[in-house]
Amino acid sequence: MSPSGWFWFTYVPCLCLGLLCLLFVVFWTSHWHGGFAWDGSGLQFNWHPVLMVTGLVVLYGFAAVVFRLPFTWKQRKLTWKLVHGGLMLAALLLSVLGLCAVFDYHRASKIPDVYSLHSWVGLCTVALFALQWLLGLAGFLLPCSPPRFRSNLKPVHVWMGKAILILSLTSCISGITEELFFNLDGVTGESYSSLPVEAKFANSLGLLLAAFVLVVFGLLSNNSWQRPETDGETVPIMLNENST
Amino acid sequence: MSPSGWFWFTYVPCLCLGLLCLLFVVFWTSHWHGGFAWDGSGLQFNWHPVLMVTGLVVLYGFAAVVFRLPFTWKQRKLTWKLVHGGLMLAALLLSVLGLCAVFDYHRASKIPDVYSLHSWVGLCTVALFALQWLLGLAGFLLPCSPPRFRSNLKPVHVWMGKAILILSLTSCISGITEELFFNLDGVTGESYSSLPVEAKFANSLGLLLAAFVLVVFGLLSNNSWQRPETDGETVPIMLNENST
Repeated sequence: MSPSGWFWFTYVPCLCLGLLCLLFVVFWTSHWHGGFAWDGSGLQFNWHPVLMVTGLVVLYGFAAVVFRLPFTWKQRKLTWKLVHGGLMLAALLLSVLGLCAVFDYHRASKIPDVYSLHSWVGLCTVALFALQWLLGLAGFLLPCSPPRFRSNLKPVHVWMGKAILILSLTSCISGITEELFFNLDGVTGESYSSLPVEAKFANSLGLLLAAFVLVVFGLLSNNSWQRPETDGETVPIMLNENST
Repeated sequence: MSPSGWFWFTYVPCLCLGLLCLLFVVFWTSHWHGGFAWDGSGLQFNWHPVLMVTGLVVLYGFAAVVFRLPFTWKQRKLTWKLVHGGLMLAALLLSVLGLCAVFDYHRASKIPDVYSLHSWVGLCTVALFALQWLLGLAGFLLPCSPPRFRSNLKPVHVWMGKAILILSLTSCISGITEELFFNLDGVTGESYSSLPVEAKFANSLGLLLAAFVLVVFGLLSNNSWQRPETDGETVPIMLNENST
């Protein structure tokens, strides 16, 4: 199979896994937890897992591999920088909305927050993501950014991008664990240890998220799938506009 | 600073973080949970977090970056392949022993197992690690391995290596979360949500583990810190023995 054939052989499962993660998290919260509202009730909490999985993992993962799509290589890099930055901004906003959903719910229901390891890791992840987005904007899109800053930022941007995805997965898996221990307590319902259908389903969501992230890492780690280096890579918006 | 200077500037914190993770996990289990035994009691369970953190994260992380140490580059690659494989084998054995500790404890205390997302992800991680070690042995150390198999295995080995480290971190963070929800239940002791000292300490252990893994990824992602390619890389034991 050609390198491009192998790429699609990996990218299509990546897309399918991402969409399956979305379906699973929406079905989990609607079928077992009553759906969605924005009223401070448990229905508002349900937005939290959906928005975090959508923004912090799936959309983030899709945005991370956008430069790997072979058909984009003959197009202007600036266009795809904007697509990458735009998708990442959407992912960041969804994540922040997901945080608002849970903080609002906690405030309305007088539940303490920011005590669990899940919340500590999750908040670090979103803070790092916001910092990464701002640095990316300053370094790779703003015309006034010094070339030395841009070239030094590139490896840090790549490393931080992977770090955020690792932390996102960690946050989601610990969040699902926490949620299942809260809901399946054996007092108000079935116990987690009896492995009811909800537990099997949510555990499978966790495995799907892990599989998705690992396939994204696979797409990122193959050097032959990298966009070939062009001048555009180190040239900010205004120069790029003029040069193409 | 020279590339080698930057390497040590990253490697020394990596070492310190790894050792700090070990100290934290040993202190957590000894100070708050009574130390260690191998008698089916909760003291046997305490070996589980200590052995998993030691084997699956810290020793694994140290073994993963062994080829990055600049002073090894002038030495025979085979020696360092054996160090890498040996450390990985030790990490794998510690992880398997960590699994035995928890399964034995569950059996003795009649506690159900393999129902939580933590256990599902953890078992997948150790299974993948065992597969990776066997494939690594077959592909990079056994003299009878076909060159085509070895060259095809290399990128898969690198990707799986990173995948295992990501899953290890995910397993540990979800395990700490699970353990804190079990122990700090507000019924037999303080509640997790009141954030007692143990919770702050174990949460900090989680953040230290995440920091360690991300620094290991930093060491792995910098191409200038890679061992320069030599013939030894694609030559198995016996040829290597003869050629050096």
